[in-house]
Amino acid sequence: MIFSSKLIEDAVREFSRLPGIGKKTALRMVLHLLKMEKGEVDGFTGALSAMRHQIRFCTTCHNISDTDVCGICASPGRNKAQICVVENIRDIIAIESTQQYNGLYHVLGGILSPLDGIGPEQLHIGSLQERVAAGTVEELIMALSPTIEGDTTVYYLARQLSGSPLKITTIARGISFGGELEYADEMTLARSIAKRLPIDNYVSVRPNP
Amino acid sequence: MIFSSKLIEDAVREFSRLPGIGKKTALRMVLHLLKMEKGEVDGFTGALSAMRHQIRFCTTCHNISDTDVCGICASPGRNKAQICVVENIRDIIAIESTQQYNGLYHVLGGILSPLDGIGPEQLHIGSLQERVAAGTVEELIMALSPTIEGDTTVYYLARQLSGSPLKITTIARGISFGGELEYADEMTLARSIAKRLPIDNYVSVRPNP
Repeated sequence: MIFSSKLIEDAVREFSRLPGIGKKTALRMVLHLLKMEKGEVDGFTGALSAMRHQIRFCTTCHNISDTDVCGICASPGRNKAQICVVENIRDIIAIESTQQYNGLYHVLGGILSPLDGIGPEQLHIGSLQERVAAGTVEELIMALSPTIEGDTTVYYLARQLSGSPLKITTIARGISFGGELEYADEMTLARSIAKRLPIDNYVSVRPNP
Repeated sequence: MIFSSKLIEDAVREFSRLPGIGKKTALRMVLHLLKMEKGEVDGFTGALSAMRHQIRFCTTCHNISDTDVCGICASPGRNKAQICVVENIRDIIAIESTQQYNGLYHVLGGILSPLDGIGPEQLHIGSLQERVAAGTVEELIMALSPTIEGDTTVYYLARQLSGSPLKITTIARGISFGGELEYADEMTLARSIAKRLPIDNYVSVRPNP
């Protein structure tokens, strides 16, 4: 694309660095910003800049936070005996949105993936061990991706923590609500039959006990 | 969605104001920015801010420009006898990308649409009349959308400029390259038959003479 303005060209180039944004979409965004009031654009760039510069990570669970300890870790209403281990921040947002979980979290910052050069040292495993060693935790809920890497990570963590009297669980795998049985992959289907539930459990959706 | 950070929440809200960006996509963008270096994010916000604050519009053709008069109007190599009348800046970028047009442009800033409250006063028509009155222009090429509003605008402009010895043309309508004949709408098809071309015209793609 040929632009008659270096300013537009720069803005389009910067926008198209974002995931899933090509040149044409970037131009649409830029021309939209151009139509917005200057003050509104300042609000936009200001919010992004403040976010990147001021964001902090919770020193306990590594969740994003505006303070040293995040709102979830600091909340007196949350169950401190449960820690849900997740891969990244997006998973916390997804689980929080269900409003069905009232424990704490621990963000690993990834999963074990030797091919990508991600070993135990790259993940927040040491701090998880410290939290477990502190003694208040009774259950670790592994909410990692149902992939080989995810399962490997669960297995690795379970071994590392095998010394402590801890209940380690994983989130249930199965056919999703609204999912068509015939299109489910064999492993999921096999597992959902093997781990079948009595009907009353199936019907009620309630906070994790 | 529930965020544990006001900074993230603000950034996601700002992002989702852009066209075609929902909350989930906005979050993906924000988390991507979070992974980028601070300097890179500054480059991103800086480019957008500079674009919005420093952008100017060409005083002659209303194209976006970094200077008072845009590069196209200022270029000695362009044919000053032709003006291509377009709706907006995006159209100029599209036509320039074909590298087949060497004349000047005039951005109307929209097309006549009484239902949306856009009358002749809202468009850059006065300045077009001034450019025509200056006398160097020999041909006006109307490159507006093939809609009722576009045709109305062409008709209106032609009437306004009927006093001057000016050739007024519109871009050709027809079946697009690679378009399937059977799926073309009746009006386009009818027009492309009525305005059929001798074969040698059809084969060569060359700069507008």
